[in-house]
Amino acid sequence: MADVVLSQAQYGKAEVRVLYVDRGAQQHEITDLNVSIALAGGLTDTYLTGDNAGVLTTDAQKNTVYAFARKFGVRPVEEFGLRLASHFAGIEPVERAQVRIEQYGWRRIDVDGTPHEHSFERQAGTRVASVIAHADGGSEVVAGVTGLVLLKSSGSEFRGFLVEEFTTLEPTEDRILATAVRAHWRYANQDTDWDASFRGARTALAEAFAATHSRSLQQTLYAMGEAVLAARPEACEVRLSLPNKHHFLVDLAPFGLDNPGAVFFAADRPYGLIEGAVQRAGVPGGDPEHQW
Amino acid sequence: MADVVLSQAQYGKAEVRVLYVDRGAQQHEITDLNVSIALAGGLTDTYLTGDNAGVLTTDAQKNTVYAFARKFGVRPVEEFGLRLASHFAGIEPVERAQVRIEQYGWRRIDVDGTPHEHSFERQAGTRVASVIAHADGGSEVVAGVTGLVLLKSSGSEFRGFLVEEFTTLEPTEDRILATAVRAHWRYANQDTDWDASFRGARTALAEAFAATHSRSLQQTLYAMGEAVLAARPEACEVRLSLPNKHHFLVDLAPFGLDNPGAVFFAADRPYGLIEGAVQRAGVPGGDPEHQW
Amino acid sequence: MADVVLSQAQYGKAEVRVLYVDRGAQQHEITDLNVSIALAGGLTDTYLTGDNAGVLTTDAQKNTVYAFARKFGVRPVEEFGLRLASHFAGIEPVERAQVRIEQYGWRRIDVDGTPHEHSFERQAGTRVASVIAHADGGSEVVAGVTGLVLLKSSGSEFRGFLVEEFTTLEPTEDRILATAVRAHWRYANQDTDWDASFRGARTALAEAFAATHSRSLQQTLYAMGEAVLAARPEACEVRLSLPNKHHFLVDLAPFGLDNPGAVFFAADRPYGLIEGAVQRAGVPGGDPEHQW
Amino acid sequence: MADVVLSQAQYGKAEVRVLYVDRGAQQHEITDLNVSIALAGGLTDTYLTGDNAGVLTTDAQKNTVYAFARKFGVRPVEEFGLRLASHFAGIEPVERAQVRIEQYGWRRIDVDGTPHEHSFERQAGTRVASVIAHADGGSEVVAGVTGLVLLKSSGSEFRGFLVEEFTTLEPTEDRILATAVRAHWRYANQDTDWDASFRGARTALAEAFAATHSRSLQQTLYAMGEAVLAARPEACEVRLSLPNKHHFLVDLAPFGLDNPGAVFFAADRPYGLIEGAVQRAGVPGGDPEHQW
Repeated sequence: MADVVLSQAQYGKAEVRVLYVDRGAQQHEITDLNVSIALAGGLTDTYLTGDNAGVLTTDAQKNTVYAFARKFGVRPVEEFGLRLASHFAGIEPVERAQVRIEQYGWRRIDVDGTPHEHSFERQAGTRVASVIAHADGGSEVVAGVTGLVLLKSSGSEFRGFLVEEFTTLEPTEDRILATAVRAHWRYANQDTDWDASFRGARTALAEAFAATHSRSLQQTLYAMGEAVLAARPEACEVRLSLPNKHHFLVDLAPFGLDNPGAVFFAADRPYGLIEGAVQRAGVPGGDPEHQW
Repeated sequence: MADVVLSQAQYGKAEVRVLYVDRGAQQHEITDLNVSIALAGGLTDTYLTGDNAGVLTTDAQKNTVYAFARKFGVRPVEEFGLRLASHFAGIEPVERAQVRIEQYGWRRIDVDGTPHEHSFERQAGTRVASVIAHADGGSEVVAGVTGLVLLKSSGSEFRGFLVEEFTTLEPTEDRILATAVRAHWRYANQDTDWDASFRGARTALAEAFAATHSRSLQQTLYAMGEAVLAARPEACEVRLSLPNKHHFLVDLAPFGLDNPGAVFFAADRPYGLIEGAVQRAGVPGGDPEHQW
Repeated sequence: MADVVLSQAQYGKAEVRVLYVDRGAQQHEITDLNVSIALAGGLTDTYLTGDNAGVLTTDAQKNTVYAFARKFGVRPVEEFGLRLASHFAGIEPVERAQVRIEQYGWRRIDVDGTPHEHSFERQAGTRVASVIAHADGGSEVVAGVTGLVLLKSSGSEFRGFLVEEFTTLEPTEDRILATAVRAHWRYANQDTDWDASFRGARTALAEAFAATHSRSLQQTLYAMGEAVLAARPEACEVRLSLPNKHHFLVDLAPFGLDNPGAVFFAADRPYGLIEGAVQRAGVPGGDPEHQW
Repeated sequence: MADVVLSQAQYGKAEVRVLYVDRGAQQHEITDLNVSIALAGGLTDTYLTGDNAGVLTTDAQKNTVYAFARKFGVRPVEEFGLRLASHFAGIEPVERAQVRIEQYGWRRIDVDGTPHEHSFERQAGTRVASVIAHADGGSEVVAGVTGLVLLKSSGSEFRGFLVEEFTTLEPTEDRILATAVRAHWRYANQDTDWDASFRGARTALAEAFAATHSRSLQQTLYAMGEAVLAARPEACEVRLSLPNKHHFLVDLAPFGLDNPGAVFFAADRPYGLIEGAVQRAGVPGGDPEHQW
């Protein structure tokens, strides 16, 4: 079997769950994270012979996450990711390190109308960051959001599509449009207020979804990507994956009832899946080894 | 096998997904539901011989959900549940009908600071209702909430517990307390503003969790149940199931670091599970056939 | 709030994951378990005042599972459950203890046709056991199976059902019948070969599903329960919960194609849910506090 | 916003669930599939202006799956995928089409020792195929397996690894090794017995896992990939993603017990994640637009 080679390899600890509590003077802040690491470089011996001399154990990677959280704090997550990825990329023989972070949202519980100082309620939607760093010092930062479920009950049509042998769908001028947004955007540089960037991009996504009169989810996707780039000059590319969560008007005629857009069946599967990337013209492509 | 009998039986359609759109003059309201039905009564022949003369098909049950949504609307869900359950219980040979409804939360998307008239974003936490109706006209209503994830980063201790052979846990005066609330409450009567009751009970649960200095999750559970009964006189019994979502302080001593309540590991399994029911003294027990 | 009482209470550690390796002379045996515990009794002070003197920590419960695994082994799971439940029920002030165990199936990997001595592959379907023990020494054992997904592509009809206003389903003489079996059976006594009982009951369930010409899933459920009682005299009651996993014949007429029972759409939701209990006539009811 | 461009785009119907029944003379064969489609090409207008003239509706894609199942059958899935992908790639303006298929395993239920002719039980592990086809006629086929959960209770060590500041893991000469295999392999040509290839590759994966004395999961991964290439000359590249499902030896010393490799805690998160690709030297790279 001398003709077989290792053509790709990476390894790391996935889903390190961290809750970080900042016990400020007035009130606590909590940050709830899920951190995943992937390292590449110098792995041929490990994979081929079982010589582990170049393996940073995934256990040590996990320890590093916790120790760095204590030493440096964890906010904003883009910065925490950069710190971790750069650290790992600096350990011989690692050539590149990717760190992905999910941050779960929490808001304070109101007690008699006042936000409580150390009690919180989980919110929907997850902020994400992905950072890649190389041994030579280069790095790239991507941020994003997942699990942002949006729906509009009007302002969505779908017609004028290609009709062939297997096309039975009727065109419609008013349908439900619903999706679970999975969006990531790449930063052109790292001299950014990460939190402001994230908030601005997230707002742009939701507002564009709401404000765009949709002729297809494809068109809405593009509008959402364009809105992020318009709102945040530091972002240079947006990638979106949008399931089309179908809602079908129920036929109530057998029961002598009309159904003027009132009662819908929310289907699980199959679903449409619309994907696309929007970027500024002329911007160089991103790091080809960065998986986001 | 003459000595074998059918001792329990019920059947129905589960998880009928309904999106209801109310196209009001100013703006749309949406209601997003998952409806499950279980019917009992007159089933012996069906189970023993395959004679289906007394079987209301689960397909017809589904149709009824959609038709009733159109005819009567779906809000509040307690009322929709009562209407459905009473209808099914009135069909010979059904003796009792249970209808469970999950209502998923949505809020309007803000566009330039203004809530959009027909665009929405999904929220965490699910409102539930369970109604049982009998052929003789009796009925019972239960409401509840699931998926309400709460955490307090202080104000929780756990000490003074029983110590025996297998007890190695150290007592603590300050720990993270986190749970995913599953709470249901039974109404003493049906002459209630269902929406106000639900909002009041949900607020009472979250506020009691936040405001109670916790000596155990058991004690917090009781305080939460008591708070619902104090806030809503129409509720007479509260049942709670609270997983103790453990967060363990990470030992950073091997790295020369202290950890004064800053960095925690959020564990998945195992978890504590604390359950209990709180009710007004002297209140009659609920319907023994109502599964909630 | 003097008029409020605690009417139910139990607590325990849930989902303690155990892998037990028996390093026999010839080959290893592995047992892969998920153990959940619920204790009741003497809890009023804990819930009402936060006095934890009567609380066996859920951490100690977890420790006990691991220590007992080492001391006594874990097979068969009914016996392991009895040992644990009896132990917990003997700790003052516990009045009753319930232990539920899931056992995941594994089979040996064949290497060149020979079963490997310490390498295994996971199988579908889960064996379960639930044991309740009381401080006075009484106990009850239930066994079961979950996640057993069955399908028959013929031998299933559904007709002769009730027809009313909302019934549009057409009767059929040949449909797909598919379900994910959730079955539990109660033992009349504990003087049993637990493994033989489990295997016999599981076989009876699958064979009855296959061999019964089905006039409804209700009828199939009863046949499955009856088959367990016929095969295993030590079992006295069987409870079944069977989702009807609908498979709809696809209408291919728009494409000029017939569809003689060849191509089906496997739907997710909604689904029928058929439940029932079958027991030997004259057998006393089971422990009302045993939740299975 | 004239400086913004669409840099990637594809869309399709995901998770079309098909059950295909072959009603042979002697007995039924069932094939249970989940089919996902992604089309690219000619999409700029659709995304930018909402002109849908070039959009093959995802509904028509779903219809095509069902119609092709009826016309051509669905086995083997690689062939069904090729047929579908080539069809879609031939529809103007589609430039490339990717079709992914999951095939769920079923085996016959034995009744009195005889395999039943039309009754089946679901098995663990999923066979997958992914096919890409281009408008110019080119295509590529990948097959794989997911959800194949393997464990060895001996024959696995991990030592000699890099030790730095955050490394606290102790080397071990005997540990549990467990993973859930996600493996895909690319075919060098399409003149293959797809079913024999799949079976051979799957067997090679499991046997290599079992038979390799593991010095790391990385080394085991390489051995598994190498084994597929050795067993199946038609395969030219194997990609593997192997979570390291940690099992930790429980410390029973506090209870006066030793634990000689008997009792383990099966952890959920975090987990190691080991990835790699193994290919024949000199083989040209695969289709860069094929996502597998």
